[in-house]
Amino acid sequence: MNTLDQLSNLISPGSVAVIGASDDPLRIGGRPIAAMLKAGYRGRILPVNPKRDAVQGLPCFASVADLPETPDAALIAVPAKLVPRTLADLGAKGCRAATLFSSGFAETGAEGEAAQRELVALARKHGIRLLGPNTLGVYNAEIGYFGTFSSSLDLGFPRPGTIGIASQSGAFGAHLSALARQQGLGSSVLITTGNEADITVSDAISWMVQSDRTNVICAYMEAINDADALLAALDAARRAGKPVILLKAGRSAVGARAAASHTASLTGNAVVADAVLSQHGAILVQDSEAMMDIAYVASRGVFPSTRSLGVVTVSGGAGIVASDAAEGLGLPMPPMPDAVQKRLKDLLPYASPVNPLDCTAQALNDPSLFEKFTSVALEEGGYGAALCFLTYVAGAPAMSEVILKAMAPLRRDHPDRIIALCALGDPEILRRYDDAGILVFNDPCRAVRAIDTVLRYSEAGTAPAKVPLPQAGPVALPDSSPDEARAKDILQAWGIAAAPEYAAADADEAVKAAERFGYPVVMKILSPDIVHKSDIGAVRLDIADADAVRAAHGAILAAAARHAPDAEVTGVLVAKQLSGGVECLMGINRDATFGPVAVFGLGGIFVELLNDVAVRACPFGPDEAREMILSIRGSAILQGLRGQAPADIDALAGMLSRLSVFAAGAGERLMSIDLNPVLAMPEGQGAYALDAVIELEPVGHGGDTT
Amino acid sequence: MNTLDQLSNLISPGSVAVIGASDDPLRIGGRPIAAMLKAGYRGRILPVNPKRDAVQGLPCFASVADLPETPDAALIAVPAKLVPRTLADLGAKGCRAATLFSSGFAETGAEGEAAQRELVALARKHGIRLLGPNTLGVYNAEIGYFGTFSSSLDLGFPRPGTIGIASQSGAFGAHLSALARQQGLGSSVLITTGNEADITVSDAISWMVQSDRTNVICAYMEAINDADALLAALDAARRAGKPVILLKAGRSAVGARAAASHTASLTGNAVVADAVLSQHGAILVQDSEAMMDIAYVASRGVFPSTRSLGVVTVSGGAGIVASDAAEGLGLPMPPMPDAVQKRLKDLLPYASPVNPLDCTAQALNDPSLFEKFTSVALEEGGYGAALCFLTYVAGAPAMSEVILKAMAPLRRDHPDRIIALCALGDPEILRRYDDAGILVFNDPCRAVRAIDTVLRYSEAGTAPAKVPLPQAGPVALPDSSPDEARAKDILQAWGIAAAPEYAAADADEAVKAAERFGYPVVMKILSPDIVHKSDIGAVRLDIADADAVRAAHGAILAAAARHAPDAEVTGVLVAKQLSGGVECLMGINRDATFGPVAVFGLGGIFVELLNDVAVRACPFGPDEAREMILSIRGSAILQGLRGQAPADIDALAGMLSRLSVFAAGAGERLMSIDLNPVLAMPEGQGAYALDAVIELEPVGHGGDTT
Repeated sequence: MNTLDQLSNLISPGSVAVIGASDDPLRIGGRPIAAMLKAGYRGRILPVNPKRDAVQGLPCFASVADLPETPDAALIAVPAKLVPRTLADLGAKGCRAATLFSSGFAETGAEGEAAQRELVALARKHGIRLLGPNTLGVYNAEIGYFGTFSSSLDLGFPRPGTIGIASQSGAFGAHLSALARQQGLGSSVLITTGNEADITVSDAISWMVQSDRTNVICAYMEAINDADALLAALDAARRAGKPVILLKAGRSAVGARAAASHTASLTGNAVVADAVLSQHGAILVQDSEAMMDIAYVASRGVFPSTRSLGVVTVSGGAGIVASDAAEGLGLPMPPMPDAVQKRLKDLLPYASPVNPLDCTAQALNDPSLFEKFTSVALEEGGYGAALCFLTYVAGAPAMSEVILKAMAPLRRDHPDRIIALCALGDPEILRRYDDAGILVFNDPCRAVRAIDTVLRYSEAGTAPAKVPLPQAGPVALPDSSPDEARAKDILQAWGIAAAPEYAAADADEAVKAAERFGYPVVMKILSPDIVHKSDIGAVRLDIADADAVRAAHGAILAAAARHAPDAEVTGVLVAKQLSGGVECLMGINRDATFGPVAVFGLGGIFVELLNDVAVRACPFGPDEAREMILSIRGSAILQGLRGQAPADIDALAGMLSRLSVFAAGAGERLMSIDLNPVLAMPEGQGAYALDAVIELEPVGHGGDTT
Repeated sequence: MNTLDQLSNLISPGSVAVIGASDDPLRIGGRPIAAMLKAGYRGRILPVNPKRDAVQGLPCFASVADLPETPDAALIAVPAKLVPRTLADLGAKGCRAATLFSSGFAETGAEGEAAQRELVALARKHGIRLLGPNTLGVYNAEIGYFGTFSSSLDLGFPRPGTIGIASQSGAFGAHLSALARQQGLGSSVLITTGNEADITVSDAISWMVQSDRTNVICAYMEAINDADALLAALDAARRAGKPVILLKAGRSAVGARAAASHTASLTGNAVVADAVLSQHGAILVQDSEAMMDIAYVASRGVFPSTRSLGVVTVSGGAGIVASDAAEGLGLPMPPMPDAVQKRLKDLLPYASPVNPLDCTAQALNDPSLFEKFTSVALEEGGYGAALCFLTYVAGAPAMSEVILKAMAPLRRDHPDRIIALCALGDPEILRRYDDAGILVFNDPCRAVRAIDTVLRYSEAGTAPAKVPLPQAGPVALPDSSPDEARAKDILQAWGIAAAPEYAAADADEAVKAAERFGYPVVMKILSPDIVHKSDIGAVRLDIADADAVRAAHGAILAAAARHAPDAEVTGVLVAKQLSGGVECLMGINRDATFGPVAVFGLGGIFVELLNDVAVRACPFGPDEAREMILSIRGSAILQGLRGQAPADIDALAGMLSRLSVFAAGAGERLMSIDLNPVLAMPEGQGAYALDAVIELEPVGHGGDTT
């Protein structure tokens, strides 16, 4: 049995054993049975309890061994100490999927963690996939399967529908489910993963990707326990055209930079996670309401090819409010073609026919106007989405008949566009629009936000074709962190250029090097132990002649001896002083979740004050590097602000991409790389790392020694 | 009769004449009567229609003259051409307040505008205050007065309550009213102002400020037709402790800077309006949902003295989501005192007692835990607001009894704190919390956003005491825009310092001035006609000796002659070259709505790329100037980034404040002032305008010639 089949057994079982079954419909071992009986579960419920013959009217079995068949799934609601024995029994019986409600494992501390590890080993031995422990369980409303003890069902069963919910938090997952229900959304599947001893949210997403009953996936996560599996699941979802709307909670203080000046410190975990998850197509949200709004729009499976919005309104005010919202999000609202505007003006002289299209309160007297304007917006405006503001008019019983009759054909004639209504009124009346495929929102701005997100998703399309990455030889790292000259040599072999420079052993060598490069030159201390060279006066700029080289040489060594007497000094670096470029920085940071992550930013206040950096998981090609470079707020400076020459972005992108490939191949000993500054010269003149720091874990410190 | 009494007659009439009364309850002249009959209007309805004896069962009068009494208010629903006659009749009858439904005035073009002007003159002559024309009208649900033909009433009457709504747009105002109703909010008064020929949204706000039935004011505006009145109304609302939540629609492309390099161009209208309205205490929103959420919280009249949030939850996940939202908004969530944490841990070992306080699903078995945690948060955490996440648990009928019993005393014991619940379930059940004074939200993030806004409002308090403004003599302006030297002289008289400088008539004078100041000096062309001096090479820096002064003098004149042959050249300015300061810019721009507005920003990319400027209406004192300076994102640079000396912010603030007072006193001929750069020297060393451009409307161009 493969792993997806096992998950199917867990989520969509034909029979389920309930170990620790209770006759009390309010107890953990009783709630699932009561819910399934009420919902009319299509499979067989097999209660197991040595103390009872019957449970909630069903025959009860004394032990797993006594079960009359091998259950597809088991719900385990026994105390922690009885769990191992139960798992062993289930394994012996041939059951391959268990949901473990029991708590008292990793969430309780070290002892519980050990118990959980043993449990996982035991489950593996028996070939059982495990949901939990400490999970609220799973349900699949379509077959009436409620393998959960959530009291959210007290409010009613979920509505049938294609939204799937996966959550690490049981209570928050059930909240999402209850919220979906309250908002009238159909969500048939909820999977809460609890301690994730075995099955994770990534597994749940993967299962939903292959399920033909789910077309939108809502996921809540706090920890990413299996980054590779999660990214693979996201990639699969993107290929399948199923949006994954992800609420990743537990954000660190994004804006607060750590005091250290390394680029490494600029990538708070939340920033890295946001960047990497977006890179893999996830739609990131921060609240449950936005999640449900987007799921609502996306669940219709309409993904227009044009990202633009037409607004049709009976209120000029609402048209302006919606336009303000669209402009704020960068959602285009192009005007109607001139000729069409004229036609609409002829039809209704006081109309505003541009976009928003205002057919005025006149449409209340003549609802055909409203239909006409909307139809023209879709046909001749060509908008990817039409938002119609009718507010309480659409909710009034008499008008709703007329409006529905007018709108329903538009839905049929334009199956590739999003059509939404801003309406207020009796939920039962509004539901009829919904049933006709017309989305209903109370607030125009909420509608605009959700529509914009789905149009962006739609525009991004399925995963782009993989472009080949830059290649070079295998990465060979020294045994400990190299000094600057050695670091530059290592990177140079990967095509990451530094300014012409020479590691001089003494002042005479320094003068020779300077004369070879031409003045002015820069000089600085060479030491693997000194990171903040400028701060201690061990960097000198604008050195203009041989005497100055000698003076600087002595001063730099003296400064190092004074401020870092214990540092190993390997010489003094002499480099040609480049000028006329834009100062950037690039770096690599090893993220605990996603491995090596590249950072790019502009020098100076852009990073120090504005934290204006782009982040991406390694490796990536030059096209992605270019996107990353252009994504920062300060990118206009690289493109040539106010008549300045544009910088060599191609060279920067190539360098950043090669750095990412190097980092991806360097193994776990690579802690960080800091190229700061990188000078981006004018177009065609390249980019040069003026400083390079590579931090390695020394060999023998437990890191990978590749 | 004073104007507020007239408005009271309009909004709260004891009798109302309906001119153009209709028997058809769906027509404009019929809807208000039908609504008032249904709602049980406490006053007298007096239909006027020459063609009928009775209207909707009420006795009908042939003309205004025939009315048996002087009505407090009139509703006019006759065609535009009959309106003047009707107004005259009403005036003769002694009626002093009319709502004019009729359209066909200013909204239709020039002819309608003229007709509207005549109407206003006529109304003034008769002492009548006019709402509209082209208005949807007004209602005051508390007395059953529905002077409106809005079909939103088809969905039901508004709930009684203390939220007042004022709107320029009829349809959007009615949408807000319907939205309030749908969300269960009590909103008794709606005033829609239509064309605002007379009564404006500002008047409506003023009336609500003095009404003891309204404690929160929601306002929708597109145009600000009476800036002074609006600001006065906002100030009065602030003094009365009534929040005004303002949706100002029709924002320009805020981020897009005009191509011109003047600071003037940096202040898009929306930016100015946002700044000035906030300055006067308005709570600005951009969507109707946020407006209603804030109104909901504020309508309870609880304005805590501490801006902090405690979150109590049964779901760790929800606690994290709420904390993320609070952190994103900058709403403090301080931890519980250590000793209290220990006590809570003793009470419930698996609890997380810091903040959020997670009393875990255990609270489902023992609801007293939940009450205990919330009570401790309020008493010992001292939070201004407590948000309790109970989701579907709070909505389940059985649990809701228990929870309500636990929470209601907390509400009574802490009347000065906001207590909110995140809950899902049957609206009737949730309403019971609401009735007990406990706010209910579906989504934790929406709750956090609304609570944060009200806590900020609360923190800002009533209007700060007016500090005296810097004083100087009256502002005397020259007849046309002065050159740089003259501009600096004018400002210098107001204590706005420039660097030591001299307007040299020839090269010899330039050398003398330079030697007096000491080298290096800066030189630039003096001409009122040349604004972008650098761009044409008419500015020279780093001039180090007498020969260089002579060379620069010749080069500057040559550049001016070449690039601006028609410009009047009044000499060459020689100035001491200051260094070591931070480059800022200050300016004045005449806003069409708010008059002179001051702008402050840092030089370079902060303004050019990031549009990082602060804006405020003139005049203001040095304290406000300081706030303005510290409000920009780049202010850390002025405060001394990375060990640099802090700049002389006191000097900057004094300068900016004096500039604002100068601008306020300068009259309408002042088009703009541009001080760019202003060099902020290190603390104690002052701030100097290195360039000054004053643009004046020439005398005789129709401007004020003060």
